[in-house]
Amino acid sequence: MLGDAVSFVRIVEVGPRDGLQNEPKNLILADRLSLIDRLAVAGLPSIEIGAMVSPKWVPQMVQSDQVIAQISPLAQSRDCPVLVPNARGMQDAVAAGARSVAVFVAASESFSQKNTNSSIEQSLSHVAEIATMARHHDIRLRGYISCVVGCPFEGVIDPIRVGDVADALLNLGCVEISLGDTIGIATPRQVENLLKTLRDRLGVAPLAAHFHDSYGQALANILVALEYGITTIDSAVAGLGGCPYAPGAGGNVATEDVVYMLNGMGIETGVDFAELVATGQWISNLLGRPYTARAGLAWSQQQSRAS
Amino acid sequence: MLGDAVSFVRIVEVGPRDGLQNEPKNLILADRLSLIDRLAVAGLPSIEIGAMVSPKWVPQMVQSDQVIAQISPLAQSRDCPVLVPNARGMQDAVAAGARSVAVFVAASESFSQKNTNSSIEQSLSHVAEIATMARHHDIRLRGYISCVVGCPFEGVIDPIRVGDVADALLNLGCVEISLGDTIGIATPRQVENLLKTLRDRLGVAPLAAHFHDSYGQALANILVALEYGITTIDSAVAGLGGCPYAPGAGGNVATEDVVYMLNGMGIETGVDFAELVATGQWISNLLGRPYTARAGLAWSQQQSRAS
Repeated sequence: MLGDAVSFVRIVEVGPRDGLQNEPKNLILADRLSLIDRLAVAGLPSIEIGAMVSPKWVPQMVQSDQVIAQISPLAQSRDCPVLVPNARGMQDAVAAGARSVAVFVAASESFSQKNTNSSIEQSLSHVAEIATMARHHDIRLRGYISCVVGCPFEGVIDPIRVGDVADALLNLGCVEISLGDTIGIATPRQVENLLKTLRDRLGVAPLAAHFHDSYGQALANILVALEYGITTIDSAVAGLGGCPYAPGAGGNVATEDVVYMLNGMGIETGVDFAELVATGQWISNLLGRPYTARAGLAWSQQQSRAS
Repeated sequence: MLGDAVSFVRIVEVGPRDGLQNEPKNLILADRLSLIDRLAVAGLPSIEIGAMVSPKWVPQMVQSDQVIAQISPLAQSRDCPVLVPNARGMQDAVAAGARSVAVFVAASESFSQKNTNSSIEQSLSHVAEIATMARHHDIRLRGYISCVVGCPFEGVIDPIRVGDVADALLNLGCVEISLGDTIGIATPRQVENLLKTLRDRLGVAPLAAHFHDSYGQALANILVALEYGITTIDSAVAGLGGCPYAPGAGGNVATEDVVYMLNGMGIETGVDFAELVATGQWISNLLGRPYTARAGLAWSQQQSRAS
């Protein structure tokens, strides 16, 4: 049977970072902390809580040091990575008490230049500095690779290039490599092609799937990842980060849709679906956006009809 | 590789019937004819064009006899099924010149009673009458089975019961059995479980997948169907039939999302994606609803950025 290789999936909830940083409305610190606490209550084992980046470029992530310092004891009991772009961000993360950080490198040279004004090689040298500090402070290190299937500037990305970056990140000390279909264009055969290449080279153990739902393909692609034995899936509650005024132009796949699928497949996640949906509705309301997570919406409508 | 068993998929476009009959706004005859013609221009090989049902119950489908009689020569060159619930509807369809009809039976006894006020057995006897007339007039006969995975009243449906209904429909002369996840609750393992049972009993050749996207699961489920060698997929342009004011509460899976996935997998459909998206935008506009097909929306946004 499908997914028989997998009995438990660890969901990495990226809503409070990858989600919120793409929302037009900025939340106050207390609300970001509440979101993180509610996600911990819902049972998410890993929650990306912030980014140590300049508020000039990403105003939504201002005070991420305060987020790190003030998250609830329950959230502290989970893995709570914070995104760091460079050594300076890492210093700030360490000072704030981070126990887990995430770094990012693009698989596309053009995307790397346009997004971070650095080559892939320069990005990897930033990671090397961060990794040294992480080792010193015993901080968990997660690596993101963006544009793993396609790039808005270069088109199709060769899986071999993704493998090169993944290899470099593992060698630098990343314990997890999150494969990002940043623009959401991937379809199942492309994902399969990528995973075959990576499996043969690195094995699947360190791999995570980070698929955006822009073209509605994320769940189908996640199903392929499960078939390849990948057991770490990134998603964002309520599909945060997608444009709410253009339903369909999704960002991160909604955690609700992922958990609904995994529940239906008998794959454990430790997530309480009702709590998750309530959190998705609450944060959508707070952001003044419609709640657009399909499984959450259909389920809550069904619940209200039943009662 | 995934889907290697399949090199061509025949899409059955159900927007002008299953889609429109669930839209709050009724279209005038000329607009329904235009929609069907545009879908034919876009290359859809099969288009469900109407239903011979009482306008008292389904006002959106009034004048379906006129639709049958007046569709464009291009549309006439395609398979254009019309839904018929009983012998009287079949008489009307024959009189209007239909060359292809579709019948429906639920796999759930409770759903059958509540939806059509008939038992499954009574529904099958209606189909028998229709089938006799279809044979006499050399009309193609397609069978829908609803609630193939779950029912709002009975919960989980045993695949064996779906097999029983499918078997009966094939024996009555249906050349195609469309498996409807009417409430969109199915997840991939349930679909796999159903298809295993049906494959062993009937083979996959006559089967079609009709998955609703209410919980966002349709594409993942379609991927499973492809893996099982199913080459006929039902979908609706623009995801017609889902509630546009509650994005996420989808009805039919959007044809755009299906074609995007199949294109990316190198599976032929004969559909022109740009024409399809233009048609989806046009009909959404005509219905006064936002355009919510994810792949169509993301693609058109990407096109406008590129130009």
